[in-house]
Amino acid sequence: MSKETKAEESHRQDSANLLIFIILLTLTILTIWLFKHRRFRFLHETGLAMIYGLFVGIILRFGVHLPQDLNDITLTCAMNSSPTTILVNVSGRFYEYSLKGEVRDSKGHDVPNAEMLRKVTFDPEVFFNILLPPIIFHAGYSLKRRHFFRNLGSILSYAFVGTVTSCFVTGLVMYGCVVFLKVIGQLGGDFFFTDCLFFGAIVSATDPVTVLAIFNELKVDVDLYALLFGESVLNDAVAIVLSSSIVAYQPEGDNRHTFDGSALLKSLGVFLGVFSGSFAMGAATGVMTALVTKFTKLRDFPLLETALFFLMSWSTFLLAEACGFTGVVAVLFCGITQAHYTYNNLSAESKSRSKQLFELLDFLAENFIFSYMGLTLFSFQHHVFNPLFIIGAFLAIFLGRAANIYPLSFLLNLGRKNKIASNFQHVMMFSGLRGAMTFALSIRDTATYARQMMFSTTLLIVFFTVWQIMSFSLVGVDTDQDNSVTPDGMTQKSTKHESAWPFRLWYTFDHNYLKPFLTHSGPPLTSTLPACCGPIARCLTSSQAYENAGQLHDEDTELILNDDSSLMYSDMTVSTDAHGMPTPSTSQAGLCSLARTSDDPLDRELVFGGTRLVLPTDDPSDPLTSFPPPPPSPPLSDPLRHRV
Amino acid sequence: MSKETKAEESHRQDSANLLIFIILLTLTILTIWLFKHRRFRFLHETGLAMIYGLFVGIILRFGVHLPQDLNDITLTCAMNSSPTTILVNVSGRFYEYSLKGEVRDSKGHDVPNAEMLRKVTFDPEVFFNILLPPIIFHAGYSLKRRHFFRNLGSILSYAFVGTVTSCFVTGLVMYGCVVFLKVIGQLGGDFFFTDCLFFGAIVSATDPVTVLAIFNELKVDVDLYALLFGESVLNDAVAIVLSSSIVAYQPEGDNRHTFDGSALLKSLGVFLGVFSGSFAMGAATGVMTALVTKFTKLRDFPLLETALFFLMSWSTFLLAEACGFTGVVAVLFCGITQAHYTYNNLSAESKSRSKQLFELLDFLAENFIFSYMGLTLFSFQHHVFNPLFIIGAFLAIFLGRAANIYPLSFLLNLGRKNKIASNFQHVMMFSGLRGAMTFALSIRDTATYARQMMFSTTLLIVFFTVWQIMSFSLVGVDTDQDNSVTPDGMTQKSTKHESAWPFRLWYTFDHNYLKPFLTHSGPPLTSTLPACCGPIARCLTSSQAYENAGQLHDEDTELILNDDSSLMYSDMTVSTDAHGMPTPSTSQAGLCSLARTSDDPLDRELVFGGTRLVLPTDDPSDPLTSFPPPPPSPPLSDPLRHRV
Repeated sequence: MSKETKAEESHRQDSANLLIFIILLTLTILTIWLFKHRRFRFLHETGLAMIYGLFVGIILRFGVHLPQDLNDITLTCAMNSSPTTILVNVSGRFYEYSLKGEVRDSKGHDVPNAEMLRKVTFDPEVFFNILLPPIIFHAGYSLKRRHFFRNLGSILSYAFVGTVTSCFVTGLVMYGCVVFLKVIGQLGGDFFFTDCLFFGAIVSATDPVTVLAIFNELKVDVDLYALLFGESVLNDAVAIVLSSSIVAYQPEGDNRHTFDGSALLKSLGVFLGVFSGSFAMGAATGVMTALVTKFTKLRDFPLLETALFFLMSWSTFLLAEACGFTGVVAVLFCGITQAHYTYNNLSAESKSRSKQLFELLDFLAENFIFSYMGLTLFSFQHHVFNPLFIIGAFLAIFLGRAANIYPLSFLLNLGRKNKIASNFQHVMMFSGLRGAMTFALSIRDTATYARQMMFSTTLLIVFFTVWQIMSFSLVGVDTDQDNSVTPDGMTQKSTKHESAWPFRLWYTFDHNYLKPFLTHSGPPLTSTLPACCGPIARCLTSSQAYENAGQLHDEDTELILNDDSSLMYSDMTVSTDAHGMPTPSTSQAGLCSLARTSDDPLDRELVFGGTRLVLPTDDPSDPLTSFPPPPPSPPLSDPLRHRV
Repeated sequence: MSKETKAEESHRQDSANLLIFIILLTLTILTIWLFKHRRFRFLHETGLAMIYGLFVGIILRFGVHLPQDLNDITLTCAMNSSPTTILVNVSGRFYEYSLKGEVRDSKGHDVPNAEMLRKVTFDPEVFFNILLPPIIFHAGYSLKRRHFFRNLGSILSYAFVGTVTSCFVTGLVMYGCVVFLKVIGQLGGDFFFTDCLFFGAIVSATDPVTVLAIFNELKVDVDLYALLFGESVLNDAVAIVLSSSIVAYQPEGDNRHTFDGSALLKSLGVFLGVFSGSFAMGAATGVMTALVTKFTKLRDFPLLETALFFLMSWSTFLLAEACGFTGVVAVLFCGITQAHYTYNNLSAESKSRSKQLFELLDFLAENFIFSYMGLTLFSFQHHVFNPLFIIGAFLAIFLGRAANIYPLSFLLNLGRKNKIASNFQHVMMFSGLRGAMTFALSIRDTATYARQMMFSTTLLIVFFTVWQIMSFSLVGVDTDQDNSVTPDGMTQKSTKHESAWPFRLWYTFDHNYLKPFLTHSGPPLTSTLPACCGPIARCLTSSQAYENAGQLHDEDTELILNDDSSLMYSDMTVSTDAHGMPTPSTSQAGLCSLARTSDDPLDRELVFGGTRLVLPTDDPSDPLTSFPPPPPSPPLSDPLRHRV
């Protein structure tokens, strides 16, 4: 076979492999539609994608038999390392080869279809560089910002303190388990303490999808929902930085068996550095996009505007990666900033365009990852399933999650006015679906025995938690009616005096300076900045801001004086209705800012991150919509109606 | 440096390189906006992208100095070929390496920043597998189908006969040039006859963008416009299949100097096989999508619908590539089929979503390719600029294009009722901008001396034709007023009796069977199929079709009886207005189906394929809008008004 023919053959094979996934996704979409159409609600779309992937994995493993490719040439050379690039001197001409990975010749040939299975395996970096960014960006872009910012303190506590706690508790339990396995001689290779911590970090990332699935059944308060969703989104970011910090400073050689305090401190330093760096980059790109869209008339050309928005958001990722920070984290904060500022500057057209684009990318990427996950259970060739390790891992993640939620909730409740009820704590405890992020982190490196065992176990954890969430939702529908988190006593004192002083400080700063600087809304800078900054303020304030100034004074400013933070951040929520069109949900909607679909004949749904929630009916006895009791049909233009 | 650190370093470098292009595109977008805002019209956006790319190329080449990466390990081995994959045995462990390409050690080191420049170079397959498909799909998806189908005969003549003629004429002229160069000793390597033909094929692909730029200035008839646009879109498909057929059957070894008749015939066979195979795949996927969207209620969930639409369209590409056909060609025909059938089944939401998505992808991909082109002029390390060859090439493409347009136009005019005026022939002659496809085909393989010389020359041709088009447009504005193609005498007899019998046959079949089968529109199959097929017909006809049946009989069916094909294909054109929203342009718009933007304050534009055209005003003396004279304000519901 000539070189061209072989390259062509390999390209065909690649196309065929990718085609398998496209067909899988197409099938998933059609099945989702069928389920939605027939109103089966017991299976989430990601679960479906996983099951289809599983079937294809079984078929590839046991059903298809391809001849081994024997055309590889084996070079034996006296190198003591495997460089990423080698130059091969073929009769005077130099060819460059790049490392693809280690081939386990001794083991690989035991597995049937090894060649075939190796070919449907993607480079793990694909997940980090192509599939995760749109998912994470979309999560940030569709955060309900009003409720998110109001609960920022609690969310940050769960995300930082909670995830780190969970990581260490899980890691310690796993270390105990590993030591036990070694004693009884069940461990087939090295497994160090840092490996345990790494495992703790990767299984501490929970997926926001679950939150929606559960919120569907248990009619919880919007604030608590924001808490849960915000925590899920942020702990992904914490987990990825945490795991890379652990890897970066794991002691080498003989030191690996001992606990190294200075390495731990270094890891902490790396963690803080990488996290804040990524945060800064994400926020900076978001702010830059806001400025560009504010000070140019780009909104006259929505195609250019959307293209710019897309490119700037993507550049955050690349910039962070190029500087050695974490792109995925940067993208998350970029998404939040874009939604908070830039979104307000976009033309109506671009608002819906950008929403739809990222919604689609998120949907495709998420389903792709889950079907790949299903496939990997059978196609991955170096699985190490250790029953005791797996049992230990399930115990560890249970304890780790408990150590995250319960003590923190207790501490937070001391300060919170809107208490986190114990029922809701249980929901948080069991809603920890491990999804795309956990999978991507565990498949990133499967070179050592420890990592392979971790990967196999993680895969089972993801499968189990997805299944658990499904049955949880099912149970919720049938029997958990009296077990549901009713808002009595919990949200009674509720949203009115919730906001703590750091939040009020942040709000005032954001409202008076950042929003007017970055968008066309908010009070004119001329009125908020001191007189000496007059010329700059005039230069930075757009004409729209003056026009909006009057009503802003009536509405927003009085709200903050009254400390009624429930109506702060009255910008549009960027949720979309069942047809994907953004539904304006401004302060007019009062406390319940959930977008409703009035034109969907099937059911009344809230669409959020590609997942749909059925909203309670308008029945006045319904706890969510009727509480706090809305004022009896006030005129829309009455600014006083907001003061409940 | 450890392996991990090196891999990380390389990833950072990759991110930084991609970031360069993102920043380039961002700059291009902002400049395009500035130009549009200030109403500078002399520079097309692709030209801008190219100029920015050029600057960055100069900076990278002469401005930045990076240390050489000396960590590569050179293996010397006694192989007589360079396999795509090698296994390296490093002290008992096997590592897989894949071929990245040949490194010219002797030449490469002469160029400053060789390492740096090599790194900003993309794998040429990126163009074929990632960037070209959305561009070509968008071209197919936004073809004005009514006018396209009416001129199908002429379009196919230009695309097939014309492109093949152009390829051979150019190839022969180039062969003469090469023989001359060899005689005077100016040729530094082998250059065979098949290389000349290959060069002829790649420079025969013209870019549809130009057509729009010129149409902007010269107010031509919509039919002739469709002719020009259709030819540009299809000759890309012909050129890509033609070039691969030439490569596939080029004689090896000593036979390369001789003309081989049987190889030529084989090439022709490959050409026909690959082309029809790709066409069939594209059409089949389009039809399948139409059926799925027709027979499911997927339209209730626009996100699922758009995702399905996107995945099915993408799968065409992969399917064709996996089967050894040409993905880009399949994608083109898939786009046309999707627009003709599936588009009618989509929900309003998905119509705009899919349009916007592909418009954005097209915009980004096109500008990316053009800025890469600019960059490549300085960053490519194996340029071979041969002045005589370049002069010969310009002469050859001029003659090749002339041999395509003039004789064919003469022959076509014998049969056409709507004659192609000589003015318009000149426009076609000079509107042959060589763009993305020519570039992608020439950069695909730059291994030999001949290919390198071709690539350098092609790059200059692209630059020159882009520049030519710009100046052409400029001149058009200032002086060419009397030279413009006025429609007198040419479109007088015009569109009424244009359609030839193959078209009428196709139209009847499509209208009576295909459209009703694949969409909800058209007459019910129960009325068009023979009685024996009753049960199948009832099963395949949707309830909407019966509802539409009445008015269809009034309008469409009579039109065909009257042989007034101007109002056939009265489905919506999928062009978008300046805000990217699809503008319905049904038969109500009469003969001039160009979408107008009424709400754009800047100017009245036609947006098509990301390019904007300024439309003539509504001045009744304007030849485009006033001809054929519209009936004086008929009531909209009057079916008779169509019979001009």
